Amino acid sequence: MIVALAGGVGGAKLILGLSQALPPDGLTAIVNTADDLKLHGLLVCPDLDTVLYTLADIADPVQGWGVASDTTEALQMLKRYGHTPWFRLGDRDLATHLLRRALLDDGKTLTQVTASLSQALGLQAKILPMTDDRVETRVRTQGREIPFQEYFVAQKAEIPIEAVRFEGIETARPTAEVLKTLAGAKAIIFCPSNPLVSIGPILALPGMREALQRAPGRKVAVSPLVRGKALKGPAARMMQELGEEASALAVARRYVDWVEIFVLDEQDQELRDPIRSLGLEVLVTDTIMNTLEDKARLAREILDYVFTSRGQGQK
Amino acid sequence: MIVALAGGVGGAKLILGLSQALPPDGLTAIVNTADDLKLHGLLVCPDLDTVLYTLADIADPVQGWGVASDTTEALQMLKRYGHTPWFRLGDRDLATHLLRRALLDDGKTLTQVTASLSQALGLQAKILPMTDDRVETRVRTQGREIPFQEYFVAQKAEIPIEAVRFEGIETARPTAEVLKTLAGAKAIIFCPSNPLVSIGPILALPGMREALQRAPGRKVAVSPLVRGKALKGPAARMMQELGEEASALAVARRYVDWVEIFVLDEQDQELRDPIRSLGLEVLVTDTIMNTLEDKARLAREILDYVFTSRGQGQK
Repeated sequence: MIVALAGGVGGAKLILGLSQALPPDGLTAIVNTADDLKLHGLLVCPDLDTVLYTLADIADPVQGWGVASDTTEALQMLKRYGHTPWFRLGDRDLATHLLRRALLDDGKTLTQVTASLSQALGLQAKILPMTDDRVETRVRTQGREIPFQEYFVAQKAEIPIEAVRFEGIETARPTAEVLKTLAGAKAIIFCPSNPLVSIGPILALPGMREALQRAPGRKVAVSPLVRGKALKGPAARMMQELGEEASALAVARRYVDWVEIFVLDEQDQELRDPIRSLGLEVLVTDTIMNTLEDKARLAREILDYVFTSRGQGQK
Repeated sequence: MIVALAGGVGGAKLILGLSQALPPDGLTAIVNTADDLKLHGLLVCPDLDTVLYTLADIADPVQGWGVASDTTEALQMLKRYGHTPWFRLGDRDLATHLLRRALLDDGKTLTQVTASLSQALGLQAKILPMTDDRVETRVRTQGREIPFQEYFVAQKAEIPIEAVRFEGIETARPTAEVLKTLAGAKAIIFCPSNPLVSIGPILALPGMREALQRAPGRKVAVSPLVRGKALKGPAARMMQELGEEASALAVARRYVDWVEIFVLDEQDQELRDPIRSLGLEVLVTDTIMNTLEDKARLAREILDYVFTSRGQGQK
């Protein structure tokens, strides 16, 4: 079993690549839920749904969440009622949130609900929320604290942030399914997701450090930054605002205690040696994933490296 | 204040007519909620919404509930998840249910929620649910009991019924707003709605008989049956199956203790004398409401009768 830790769009791309490169039941994604938001009584899980929709080949490729070519009739009607949600919800996407709400109300866990949804869409890869407990990423900005999604979507990540905090993380726990999956993982891949707010909450769950340390598989992180920029999302900007350099090297420093292998884009070649100096093996390759082929190729290169080069000269 | 008691489509037609014939704030509709159903965690209120949508000029004229020309993207997606609801919910209609759910979750009563929705749609007539308590119409059919909506929508009212029961009616109460409205009503009009399952639950609420008896306004019932048939819905069939004649006369018998005036369609002229013999005044007129003009005309005729002919020769 190969395990991928992921947030939304960037992570989902590599997960799709991995699903192409691995046998149908050989992949489990452990997905950030700290971006989840309650909206009109529904629980919206942007990262889980992006992974779900990406694997089902119905993801909106532009917006970063939701279903491709979705309509917004319900949203228009909500506007007519004077309740314009700041978070754009398409009609087909709404069905996911409605069904999730109904299943949660029936007493199912988010893990069970996610399994139902992905089975119904015919997926064979497993998608696990990082926790069934409620964690909420909040950012401090201009003297007040707001939920991450409000910063990211309503404010378009255009206001400076001063801190990031995961509300509820102290009492949240990784699920039994997450712990079991990690214990049996042949490799654990940190997808090219935002290190602060996508991978960050997963790693911040109490017990996660020990679970990853005990996990027998090699751990690999794929840089979400190329030439100091994120392909999608505010990772670079957030890192800078929090006083870090926005670079693959800074990402590698964040992950140095967690992984053995770092996957660096070939455009960042000059960072190979500095990252090696941190004590990490470095795989340099093209990490840009535009086409399905790109995704599968990157996934295969990572898997090949993990399973053939252990302890070899590439370090 | 003129008060209309109503269920769905037939009642909403006359309410629309009354809204044309009265000053903007001169009309209050008290609407059946015993057909309400829970669906995917939402509370669907077909009668309240039919009145709401009809007054807002967005009602689906064919289906009998929901918004005209609505799309069904969310429904299609629910089907993809293997959860085909038996109750057709359009996307714009969904917005109503979502907002209602959210407002109820915020602690608002159904009365407050309904007021919010109708204000947002710019309505001036007041729409009141008959109760804020949960009442559920259930029908016994073929040895088992099912919710009314399942009989009406999923079974298309094509199976014979043996009994009708209003689950929860003993502990439900008319709201304070309903009681206050009745106490100040200049006239109370029983709309041409199903006497068994639309007007029936309103009248069956504990305290309703006394409230109507105390109400100073004259009470008028409009026959929902013409030539023994309902223009919409299963009223005629249900009455027959429960051992009653399906006729305006049988409707008049049901209402004889409740109203003083009965509005009979001109096609049923021969029933005027039998209904008078019950002790009711009878207004014979064209009760078929196809166009907006028809609706306004019927409303005006009823109002004229109530306010000009009290105790006069027409009885």
